[in-house]
Amino acid sequence: MRTLIKNGTVLSTTGAVTADVLVDGETIAAVTAPGMLAEQNVVFDTEFDVTGKYVMPGGIDAHTHMEMPFGGTFSADTFETGTRAAAWGGTTTIIDFAVQPKGNSLLSTLDTWHEKADGDCAVDYGFHMIVSDVNDATLKEMESCVAAGVSSFKMFMAYPGVFYSTDGEILRAMNKAADIGGTIAMHAENGIAIDELVAQALAQGRSEPYQHGVTRPPELEGEATSRAITLAGVTGAPLYIVHLSAAQALSAVAEARDEGQNVFAETCPQYLYLSIEDLGKPDFEGSKYVASPPLREKHHQPDLWRGLRTNDLSVVSTDHCPFCFKDQKELGRGDFTKIPNGMPGVEHRIDLLHQGVVAGEISLARWVEACSTTPARMFGLYPRKGVIAPGADADIVIYDPAAEHTISAETHHMNVDYSAYEGMTVTGRCETVLSRGSVVVDRGTYHGRAGHGRFLERDLCQYLN
Amino acid sequence: MRTLIKNGTVLSTTGAVTADVLVDGETIAAVTAPGMLAEQNVVFDTEFDVTGKYVMPGGIDAHTHMEMPFGGTFSADTFETGTRAAAWGGTTTIIDFAVQPKGNSLLSTLDTWHEKADGDCAVDYGFHMIVSDVNDATLKEMESCVAAGVSSFKMFMAYPGVFYSTDGEILRAMNKAADIGGTIAMHAENGIAIDELVAQALAQGRSEPYQHGVTRPPELEGEATSRAITLAGVTGAPLYIVHLSAAQALSAVAEARDEGQNVFAETCPQYLYLSIEDLGKPDFEGSKYVASPPLREKHHQPDLWRGLRTNDLSVVSTDHCPFCFKDQKELGRGDFTKIPNGMPGVEHRIDLLHQGVVAGEISLARWVEACSTTPARMFGLYPRKGVIAPGADADIVIYDPAAEHTISAETHHMNVDYSAYEGMTVTGRCETVLSRGSVVVDRGTYHGRAGHGRFLERDLCQYLN
Amino acid sequence: MRTLIKNGTVLSTTGAVTADVLVDGETIAAVTAPGMLAEQNVVFDTEFDVTGKYVMPGGIDAHTHMEMPFGGTFSADTFETGTRAAAWGGTTTIIDFAVQPKGNSLLSTLDTWHEKADGDCAVDYGFHMIVSDVNDATLKEMESCVAAGVSSFKMFMAYPGVFYSTDGEILRAMNKAADIGGTIAMHAENGIAIDELVAQALAQGRSEPYQHGVTRPPELEGEATSRAITLAGVTGAPLYIVHLSAAQALSAVAEARDEGQNVFAETCPQYLYLSIEDLGKPDFEGSKYVASPPLREKHHQPDLWRGLRTNDLSVVSTDHCPFCFKDQKELGRGDFTKIPNGMPGVEHRIDLLHQGVVAGEISLARWVEACSTTPARMFGLYPRKGVIAPGADADIVIYDPAAEHTISAETHHMNVDYSAYEGMTVTGRCETVLSRGSVVVDRGTYHGRAGHGRFLERDLCQYLN
Amino acid sequence: MRTLIKNGTVLSTTGAVTADVLVDGETIAAVTAPGMLAEQNVVFDTEFDVTGKYVMPGGIDAHTHMEMPFGGTFSADTFETGTRAAAWGGTTTIIDFAVQPKGNSLLSTLDTWHEKADGDCAVDYGFHMIVSDVNDATLKEMESCVAAGVSSFKMFMAYPGVFYSTDGEILRAMNKAADIGGTIAMHAENGIAIDELVAQALAQGRSEPYQHGVTRPPELEGEATSRAITLAGVTGAPLYIVHLSAAQALSAVAEARDEGQNVFAETCPQYLYLSIEDLGKPDFEGSKYVASPPLREKHHQPDLWRGLRTNDLSVVSTDHCPFCFKDQKELGRGDFTKIPNGMPGVEHRIDLLHQGVVAGEISLARWVEACSTTPARMFGLYPRKGVIAPGADADIVIYDPAAEHTISAETHHMNVDYSAYEGMTVTGRCETVLSRGSVVVDRGTYHGRAGHGRFLERDLCQYLN
Repeated sequence: MRTLIKNGTVLSTTGAVTADVLVDGETIAAVTAPGMLAEQNVVFDTEFDVTGKYVMPGGIDAHTHMEMPFGGTFSADTFETGTRAAAWGGTTTIIDFAVQPKGNSLLSTLDTWHEKADGDCAVDYGFHMIVSDVNDATLKEMESCVAAGVSSFKMFMAYPGVFYSTDGEILRAMNKAADIGGTIAMHAENGIAIDELVAQALAQGRSEPYQHGVTRPPELEGEATSRAITLAGVTGAPLYIVHLSAAQALSAVAEARDEGQNVFAETCPQYLYLSIEDLGKPDFEGSKYVASPPLREKHHQPDLWRGLRTNDLSVVSTDHCPFCFKDQKELGRGDFTKIPNGMPGVEHRIDLLHQGVVAGEISLARWVEACSTTPARMFGLYPRKGVIAPGADADIVIYDPAAEHTISAETHHMNVDYSAYEGMTVTGRCETVLSRGSVVVDRGTYHGRAGHGRFLERDLCQYLN
Repeated sequence: MRTLIKNGTVLSTTGAVTADVLVDGETIAAVTAPGMLAEQNVVFDTEFDVTGKYVMPGGIDAHTHMEMPFGGTFSADTFETGTRAAAWGGTTTIIDFAVQPKGNSLLSTLDTWHEKADGDCAVDYGFHMIVSDVNDATLKEMESCVAAGVSSFKMFMAYPGVFYSTDGEILRAMNKAADIGGTIAMHAENGIAIDELVAQALAQGRSEPYQHGVTRPPELEGEATSRAITLAGVTGAPLYIVHLSAAQALSAVAEARDEGQNVFAETCPQYLYLSIEDLGKPDFEGSKYVASPPLREKHHQPDLWRGLRTNDLSVVSTDHCPFCFKDQKELGRGDFTKIPNGMPGVEHRIDLLHQGVVAGEISLARWVEACSTTPARMFGLYPRKGVIAPGADADIVIYDPAAEHTISAETHHMNVDYSAYEGMTVTGRCETVLSRGSVVVDRGTYHGRAGHGRFLERDLCQYLN
Repeated sequence: MRTLIKNGTVLSTTGAVTADVLVDGETIAAVTAPGMLAEQNVVFDTEFDVTGKYVMPGGIDAHTHMEMPFGGTFSADTFETGTRAAAWGGTTTIIDFAVQPKGNSLLSTLDTWHEKADGDCAVDYGFHMIVSDVNDATLKEMESCVAAGVSSFKMFMAYPGVFYSTDGEILRAMNKAADIGGTIAMHAENGIAIDELVAQALAQGRSEPYQHGVTRPPELEGEATSRAITLAGVTGAPLYIVHLSAAQALSAVAEARDEGQNVFAETCPQYLYLSIEDLGKPDFEGSKYVASPPLREKHHQPDLWRGLRTNDLSVVSTDHCPFCFKDQKELGRGDFTKIPNGMPGVEHRIDLLHQGVVAGEISLARWVEACSTTPARMFGLYPRKGVIAPGADADIVIYDPAAEHTISAETHHMNVDYSAYEGMTVTGRCETVLSRGSVVVDRGTYHGRAGHGRFLERDLCQYLN
Repeated sequence: MRTLIKNGTVLSTTGAVTADVLVDGETIAAVTAPGMLAEQNVVFDTEFDVTGKYVMPGGIDAHTHMEMPFGGTFSADTFETGTRAAAWGGTTTIIDFAVQPKGNSLLSTLDTWHEKADGDCAVDYGFHMIVSDVNDATLKEMESCVAAGVSSFKMFMAYPGVFYSTDGEILRAMNKAADIGGTIAMHAENGIAIDELVAQALAQGRSEPYQHGVTRPPELEGEATSRAITLAGVTGAPLYIVHLSAAQALSAVAEARDEGQNVFAETCPQYLYLSIEDLGKPDFEGSKYVASPPLREKHHQPDLWRGLRTNDLSVVSTDHCPFCFKDQKELGRGDFTKIPNGMPGVEHRIDLLHQGVVAGEISLARWVEACSTTPARMFGLYPRKGVIAPGADADIVIYDPAAEHTISAETHHMNVDYSAYEGMTVTGRCETVLSRGSVVVDRGTYHGRAGHGRFLERDLCQYLN
């Protein structure tokens, strides 16, 4: 089965060239001057003429939470619905999180998550491992995780009593990560101090969703980020700050990177486009925007865009973790701490970031880099993923940069009853999406299937000094 | 004429893939999975089987001075000898400097330089324009220069009375550059203060080559770099700091880049490998190392390597400006200020930086980026140059990463009677070099010719925010 | 002649005590517990009961320009009128500037200024020396100046063609200053770049006073400040930045001070209270506010107050340099560059800074420190001046912190036809002012006389590391 | 009872004057020109002619631990022996720490400490309160503490399970401190991470005293200092970092102070003169140097001296907490974690810092400021303490700057069997020491008595913005 994608504007992290892309089976076989293969009488099963369209490596969303247990409920997307929505939005790889329950082993956790995902996914997927129980056995198992293709370990400085690890536990895990080359992915908020602010708010009767933002000030994200960087520096572990939202945290990351430390960070579209004002929407609508770290004051947004340009923010992920407004978000009426934390987003990352291209915030090359190539290199998937090159998996998005559409819960494919971007009109759309050579989405029709997506064994981070 | 380079490790700024590269005429026609074209019965005129070798885009040396007038003499390489040496070392594009004499117009200067280079070059070449006479006519001509493919303008904060421009002149030129999108390339040393230190040294009878280093302290490079950044910030002009050598200057660049300003910098191999101690070599040998900025204390070297990793130093150029020891360097016996400023280097940049790869200082991807892709993007040559991709000029280096050789004036091809790296054994060698599809060097034999190289009209910098 | 000032709140840089102060002749003889001397039957000629009032060391204004030649005219206050006004405002010492004309010697300049001031001053005075012609003879004379009690040398990075020194000249003077322990006081604005902006403004027909502010952007003050700091660092000279007005410059000073360099700065009341908006006042009223550096955007003000608190701004001086609106400022109608640069202020510094105390911006101790004690220590006058202590000159201000009055040209004593603070009501007033034991002002009546004030031979700066 | 101290060099924070000081009863009655009182026939009971000697305000040691329970033993000095030693060394006020046991109230703790100290002290004393049990009752009691003259509250980020407070507890206490104007004094080391490093060391059989230093790296002091500053910033509480030892921590303090935050820090003589090398002394001698934070690499010392000069380190205290080598330090043979933490020092602070004056590291004025005046102002004792001024307590040290003596356990007056500075010869000695007008030490003879010293009710910090 050979597919020719011809006359497209093929994008990479350094720019664009006009070229034909030949897909043979599951991988890319050639990138050629336009018409060159035809001249040589090479034959194809299928042809897409994509003049004027972008041909880009499929998106990689390095931060999703499908059917994740949280506060007595589960995030609303299954691996099936979630990866389908991802595909609609041009994301052909997700890296989800296996969540170690206290007392369980990492490997049994991994088994559980394999069971959840196996046979369900529309696109390829990998796992990070959430380490919530640091002990001798767990640390030893980190080696097995790396061997099993799970080379990154998430820890939390937030959520005491749930996922929270102490600085001593973090230090232990970082020591191990440094030994084996694994990456520590960190949720960097000072959860201990935040819990005190939360207790004060509740004691004073401040219980509405907006308080979620107030009780998690950006200074406490900046502090935790600095602390994580110090601990990583003491141990030599690579550090990846997830969902960075605050200028203070960006500043800490930039300083460490200037000094050449192996510190990286991602941000998410919600921090680039939404703000704490959304948490104040009436009629409990603010609950739709409850996620952690919280949406920030608007003045953080230009700082984050600048961070994306300077590569102090290297990756854009979604932290996709949808909870329906009805019955799920509503659990927190009268007590914002009961609102499940998380927002939907896996479907719109590519489109939302393209608005940054349209607005001149980032270049085309940066768009591809932040959404696809860098996550591939960061998480050991390159050059299998993240690039249009011979031998790479044929995960390809044909993107129409001129098409307009309007984001809405009415039309989106995520299994959640609201959109955080309801009514927003965006320029650009994924026209056709291939996953390992198979067309999954094409001009508004879904051709994918649960089970097409395979588990990806990942190597180590490729950015380490 | 079709050439197949097969089974190579094809390098880009994001990593390596095993692939075949098809050259058709002067450009690259395809990059394919190994053997794919053969299976399709595509025929070739020539084939290189390069298993185990790197296939990389030809090097771009963005800073050379061929047959440049300086202090009553000329740099010793002509465009013919200099570009031939470049080709031997895997550099298939140079960007040289046209030097406006005071009182002359920019366009007549450009004509003069075209005459010098035309018909002489073994590889392609472009020009920066050195603006040494800022006035209304000159500023107007900057527009014509951009139209003529010369989109970058070098100015000097050093060399009062020669190339030096005042801050007011710099401001004027930057205003114009900001208007037309041109880049200001800056030699950032406080020449006025340096001249005072030089006068003090001479008055005290300190006349040996080592004083060249002492009288140009790194603080005065840091200061000038900061000043150039401020002036660029006030005007909005893109700024490219040439031959950055000092930690203080790097620090200023890093800060500006963190803030998202359009500021870029290059360093040179001599600052990574040599030091002020070389200036102290006996028997006037120190004169061989006289260039400006001067070689620094060794502790600057790890900072520069770190800057290369963090991309605060984006480009490695050579500032190739050779003067023979005999008769040229010797002009400065008894008075270091009479020593022509400059060192040879165009031939060994790729090899010298490869030592950084071998030593773990930088990755393969960074090597290609700093030596080829970034200069192409920085100076408006991408994707014609700087990448292995369909449609690009077939400027290709086949690099044997395991070969060893020893640098020596005995064997080098530059027209100069000494090597700054005499006796240094390096790992890696350019085995075959193609320029626009023609083999120029192949396994120790030179196949090039004067006049093959063409002038490159360059676009604007592609990194601007 | 013995005077007892009893029951006052005696202020120092560390706080306040209730005490009696005995003046005997020209100096302070004792500071005692209230009533202690009376109990011992010590007798006095005069007694002031100042219960509830502050007793503070007389103000020292380290930056005034009396009868200074500027642009073909002279500043409007003579030493007689200027020091009288100073006394009214609680300033009992001024340090004025002797201005070396190009081609003249420093010592003859000093003679000229002695002639101007001798016999005219109501309070004591010293001189800084403005060095505008750096050459071997001048440098040698700097030693004689120090011997003659003139231990600080002002240089200009602004005003090309007038007072401007090149970086090379600055370096030479700093080398000499480092040798002899003298301080370099610097007007830090990049005058070369500013002149270009000014030329652009005039060429575009922008000629009104507001353009004075626009053409001297704060970045160019920050730049020059950094440059001066670098040059001082290279030479080891103590550096005192005069009339710092911009956050960018403050930042540079703070950084150097953190690193322990001998760098100090003063600001002026006009930068704390007025802004660039005043330069835009209609009917050419903006000209009243033309001084250099120019008044800044308001957002610089809180930074300057913070700098005063942190001691990154150590001194408040006035840069008193009055020109009448009529006939003087009016010289610049139609061309802002013709407006004499300078504003009146020597009379109101103590009162204006007291508003900062009232508003909680600075403490009482900081007020005394910035207005009196620090300038005394900075410029080699302590403990003769700047402190209420035995042996010190009896330069004493009895300050009523509760009195209110309104600043106006109608009532002020400076020889200038407008006030920059016209109509501003302030809290606090100098009730009685003694200079070397003599009452100069007492409850609204002037008792001083021209010629009472003596020239002060100053020692070196007392803050050097 | 009247005492005249005549012809001395009277020191303050701004310099020195030659003057007579009259003591009347417990306080200073006058500071006069030499001989002035005699001329007026004022009579005295006693006279000290101190020509050529310094007359300075008595030292204030803001950080001592007399008879403190630690690890099953008690620090070896009682309030009687400790304050006697303090007096010998020119320290006439100590501020010791009342230690709240978990489960106890603050006020009962204060009672306990009053009982310990009452009737025993040779010089005046105050208390800080160590808050180790943060709860509603404790927080409420903080108000009573302030009312009872205990206006500063120490917390620990180190020593988990003992004094350690979580970030949430710190936040609560800081909120209260901000409300009532109290100061939070912080032991800033990340004890949680340190405990992990300690566990690793012990598990690897690294048990000697040197490991105390290795397991408490300076980065973890820097981190905790930054964190404390962030929490203080979020709450608005004044913060005083105790015993700062590391350049990283100094850097964090300097940055916060530049921004005008109410952040202060002290260092101790041991960090200025001793280093981690001392911890490596053979025969378990290293245990003598075990204190927390640990002694650092020597390169931190010049940074600390610079911090003293720049006032980023405002106070020098001793953290005097002596344990005898025999029987006490020896508890840790074979397990460094069992070594009682603490070093003796209260007797030698003034002398040791005077060496900094002699060496040119700090000025005389800075010496007085760091050792006496600033602690007085920082902890609400000024102008009762910390200054030679009428009305102040007559706590006076007559210091002979030329006398030499050698520090030794043989001759010191602290109740501990070793000296950390054994054999060090110092220049300068406290010749005569007065406490509230009574001679305590005079030329080598002790005249003091237990019970002379009184408890000092302290006001709030006087440095707050």
